[in-house]
Amino acid sequence: MPISETWLLPDGVADVLPEQAQVIESLRRQSLDFFASRGYQLVYTPFIEYTESLSSLSEANQDLDLVSFKVIDQMSGRLLGIRADMTPQVARIDAHVYPVEGVARYCYSGTVLHTQPQNSSPSRTPLQLGAELYGHASIAADVEMIDVMLGLLHATFAIDQTHLDLGHVGLFKSLVRYAQLDKNNERVLHDLYQRKALPELEELTQSLPHGNDFYILGRYSGDLVALETHLSQDLLNDPDFNAALNSLKTTVSEIRLRWPHLSIGLDVVELRSYHYHTGLMYAVYVPNRAQPLAQGGRYDGIGEHFGRARPATGFSCDLYALCAGQFKTLETVVAPAGTDVELLDAIQQARQDGLSVVQLLGNDTLNSVPSATHQLVYQGGQWVIQKIESV
Amino acid sequence: MPISETWLLPDGVADVLPEQAQVIESLRRQSLDFFASRGYQLVYTPFIEYTESLSSLSEANQDLDLVSFKVIDQMSGRLLGIRADMTPQVARIDAHVYPVEGVARYCYSGTVLHTQPQNSSPSRTPLQLGAELYGHASIAADVEMIDVMLGLLHATFAIDQTHLDLGHVGLFKSLVRYAQLDKNNERVLHDLYQRKALPELEELTQSLPHGNDFYILGRYSGDLVALETHLSQDLLNDPDFNAALNSLKTTVSEIRLRWPHLSIGLDVVELRSYHYHTGLMYAVYVPNRAQPLAQGGRYDGIGEHFGRARPATGFSCDLYALCAGQFKTLETVVAPAGTDVELLDAIQQARQDGLSVVQLLGNDTLNSVPSATHQLVYQGGQWVIQKIESV
Repeated sequence: MPISETWLLPDGVADVLPEQAQVIESLRRQSLDFFASRGYQLVYTPFIEYTESLSSLSEANQDLDLVSFKVIDQMSGRLLGIRADMTPQVARIDAHVYPVEGVARYCYSGTVLHTQPQNSSPSRTPLQLGAELYGHASIAADVEMIDVMLGLLHATFAIDQTHLDLGHVGLFKSLVRYAQLDKNNERVLHDLYQRKALPELEELTQSLPHGNDFYILGRYSGDLVALETHLSQDLLNDPDFNAALNSLKTTVSEIRLRWPHLSIGLDVVELRSYHYHTGLMYAVYVPNRAQPLAQGGRYDGIGEHFGRARPATGFSCDLYALCAGQFKTLETVVAPAGTDVELLDAIQQARQDGLSVVQLLGNDTLNSVPSATHQLVYQGGQWVIQKIESV
Repeated sequence: MPISETWLLPDGVADVLPEQAQVIESLRRQSLDFFASRGYQLVYTPFIEYTESLSSLSEANQDLDLVSFKVIDQMSGRLLGIRADMTPQVARIDAHVYPVEGVARYCYSGTVLHTQPQNSSPSRTPLQLGAELYGHASIAADVEMIDVMLGLLHATFAIDQTHLDLGHVGLFKSLVRYAQLDKNNERVLHDLYQRKALPELEELTQSLPHGNDFYILGRYSGDLVALETHLSQDLLNDPDFNAALNSLKTTVSEIRLRWPHLSIGLDVVELRSYHYHTGLMYAVYVPNRAQPLAQGGRYDGIGEHFGRARPATGFSCDLYALCAGQFKTLETVVAPAGTDVELLDAIQQARQDGLSVVQLLGNDTLNSVPSATHQLVYQGGQWVIQKIESV
């Protein structure tokens, strides 16, 4: 590699320079403080773990496994994975390392690495920020989580024009069970739902057991009233299906109470992480952005891999994506060299006031400090801070 | 891997649980704020880079190369290294990404990974914290850096009983040049100095050109007055040697001015990172701890690998080591369920006051919140926070 290229970074990897780093740092702190105010306790999870620990959800985590960098541990000879998602790590902590009885609330923020860019974002090093609630299977826990997610975006990032998308894997899952659908047709249907391919769906479902219900689910996927009107009464009476439908209805009304002006959309066949999630799923969108800003859902039993299955619900987002395009000009106060007590006191005071103060080195002049915006000058018998007028 | 072991972590890798995470998080913030007050600008460096970029100091960085985990980049087919030290990354940024004219001050904090534990610490995932000053070759820059290092430990970590060790690779290097010593003897001497093996040193130096000066350097390595008394006048007149000796003297007196009660020790043959450093070296020790709490030095020219050689001086430390054994009990205020406006206002107020408030879910009782220390109760017509008395 010639010297002229040693400064190049791999695709999807970037430095964060001071003007942007201070914005991200500040929003990271505010986010964690927001979580703390809601009772979510901070954990730092390790960067590397045995690969077996990182893939706690066998089926679902095949994707996760594929995007994780692997290295050999020189000390044990075993395979290590670099974290690509912090959720399984928090599950491990809840299950075994910090196994409290009752409800546990965790939050975290840290860089994760992906071998390939995910979710149409070019980045391979998202700064994951998230919160999780363990030990409560109720819809109240999901509602709290959604409220925390919306509250974070509103309070910390001043993002208000949001749209909440709600789904629930329980409707499709219980219909599959109810209709005793085989694996192959389940996969085909899943695919048709994702592509919103209604004509194909109509054709296929004609030959399926309880086919009309499968069609209706896709046809009226965003309309609970229409679903209740058109689905068969037998299905509506199925306890699992009924519970899932009621969860959705309760969530909508509880969230409406707390966020009366929020735009809410439903999609009962949005099954993006079908294998991973076990109940309600939620995602927040903003105008002009195809990918959700934050998303999550219920994933009961995630801790089973570590010997303790617990109800769990949570969400995460990429702090870099949330801060994209935000920069803040740096301000630096430049003070002359010297050890005069009054000067040193003035510098000390300015620093205590939260200012960034540099004292000139040797015989340097103002020009030596590229970020200089103000200077400390002696005027009328005291040291005062003056803005530097650009020439 | 049986389920009973999936929660095990690799050696030298650990979770940080809430009681400790909040201490580290708080000290991390205070450290970065301290750096900012001194004009050091925050950068976030990437977790992975091409290996060629990470090893910017060919000879010196063989050690660094050996402790870096390597992975193949699926996107480019090239070898990537996981950062084991953030200093070369900051050098890259200063040289090419953020190439300001004049003096640049940077700070950073982030996890680095090591294939094997380093410096007698069992950890393989230190949380590196550091600051660096580019573009100033003067001793004034080194003095500022040492002052910042001591100030950080004092102001942020309340560590006062410190001992500062100073060294300067320039004395030995210029004597080697002056005596035209061959590589082999240079290596042997280096080794004897490290082992403080005076009898062997005395024997070896008898057969070396300017052998007595090499012996005196080791014999009086901690005493500038004795060095000036016993070294040959020719060597003392050598411009390089003279400059190095004066640098040390100036540093001692400048630091004494700022830190009058500090214990300062000298060792002119302490050459721990001989290949890496180019001038003054500094390390801070505390009683009963063999490893330095923080250390650094001058490493001019580090940016040459990226096409811009600049004077540089800086230090770093492991935030985990600095916070070792510090825990803080978590406090959680538990509020009853409900949507009563006065209750919600009281919760909102407590959160704004910086408290951590959890509202009970469903029909849960206090017992459901393991970290509960206080509760919000309705008393005398208003909501008040009460400490929970342990039964």
